[in-house]
Amino acid sequence: MQFTSEQRLDDGVLEREFTLGEIPGTLWTPGSAAPVPLILMAHNNGLPKKDGRLVARARHTAACGYAVATIDAAGCGDRPRSAADEQIRADLRRAMQAGEPVDGIFEALVGPLVEKAAPEWLTTLDALLALPEIGGPVGYSGWTALGIRLAASEPRIEAAGFFAGGYVPLALREEARQVTVPLLVLLQWDDEGNPRQRALDLFDSFGSKEKTLHANLGGHTGTPWFELEDGCRFLDRHLK
Amino acid sequence: MQFTSEQRLDDGVLEREFTLGEIPGTLWTPGSAAPVPLILMAHNNGLPKKDGRLVARARHTAACGYAVATIDAAGCGDRPRSAADEQIRADLRRAMQAGEPVDGIFEALVGPLVEKAAPEWLTTLDALLALPEIGGPVGYSGWTALGIRLAASEPRIEAAGFFAGGYVPLALREEARQVTVPLLVLLQWDDEGNPRQRALDLFDSFGSKEKTLHANLGGHTGTPWFELEDGCRFLDRHLK
Repeated sequence: MQFTSEQRLDDGVLEREFTLGEIPGTLWTPGSAAPVPLILMAHNNGLPKKDGRLVARARHTAACGYAVATIDAAGCGDRPRSAADEQIRADLRRAMQAGEPVDGIFEALVGPLVEKAAPEWLTTLDALLALPEIGGPVGYSGWTALGIRLAASEPRIEAAGFFAGGYVPLALREEARQVTVPLLVLLQWDDEGNPRQRALDLFDSFGSKEKTLHANLGGHTGTPWFELEDGCRFLDRHLK
Repeated sequence: MQFTSEQRLDDGVLEREFTLGEIPGTLWTPGSAAPVPLILMAHNNGLPKKDGRLVARARHTAACGYAVATIDAAGCGDRPRSAADEQIRADLRRAMQAGEPVDGIFEALVGPLVEKAAPEWLTTLDALLALPEIGGPVGYSGWTALGIRLAASEPRIEAAGFFAGGYVPLALREEARQVTVPLLVLLQWDDEGNPRQRALDLFDSFGSKEKTLHANLGGHTGTPWFELEDGCRFLDRHLK
């Protein structure tokens, strides 16, 4: 793991870019010196790690006393895409503009994205836990489809926050039954592209004994600011 | 309003019994001297004000810096009941034991209970706001059916927390559209006696622009302790 840049933010959080082989990532750590728990933070459908909403969420969470890491995994963010991937994304844009059904296209897009991304997130997890400023335990936040795979298969992840506004492939909806860590699921009640009942069914599927759903009025990007604070308190209950 | 007893609790909260005409009530106020906002706290279906769950919630909320008041309204708690009321409650117990449908009985029970209780809560509100230690604004917490009536008709109520686990008569489900204050609705995901879909439909009905649903795994009485803290933070956002 090589750090390639760093800047100290106003609230004392240190923001560092890194590379790990081909994987580019960003790590935010709080001003305090003691080892802190780690949050893996991913954006739905592999949106770029530099996306403003993810960065704001990461900085806030770091200021709450966590190391927060995100990467552009294979096929995600600014990483190169295969011709087949480009074709699927073009099909998706065309279908959305035409108002045609998109579930089949999302199946073809998101399933393989998770298959390729998950191993790189676990490689990154190993490297991050070797840093002296990170002490564990580990939490996860964000992209539901990837988070299901990681939380169901990686016992070092002890709590997870999922954003329900993203397509979850059928196979991963089944895999959700194997997720048993405490969960906080965020749902936007009027999310334009994501059927509410599907999100409620997914919440019902998770195998966790402690799971909480926070649903707020509004569309896909309308999550209220206070959910940032609620998210930190959820992590505090389980990781501190 | 006459205070008939008082005790100071460990956390500095003052707990006082009062009577207001025929209405018996309890008022909890925090240790601080400054005027504080007021929370009207009612228990589903007119359960007694001395119920342990309500008392625990009231004490916690008072310690968060609120005056909290509850009453046994007409027909509720230990207040005398008419022969007709007793008959309905007997019918309800018998139907529940026999596993028979109870919606019709709840309609006959809860609708009139709210009709009789709401004016007494408003009388109590007037009297409480005349006390020097209570400064407003006013919030509401608990029994959904009564809360819909109060929040839809009483503009002094500026925010409300509802517990979804209680029967809401059809007329009040319609009235829910007239509720426009910020809402926090608590739902127990596996509430034995209260259909989940009915609670989700009710949440959908409220006219409020800011409304949040917190759903937790578990049965009717299984609301996790951290919802007490979330409830205070919700009130803090709107009343402080």
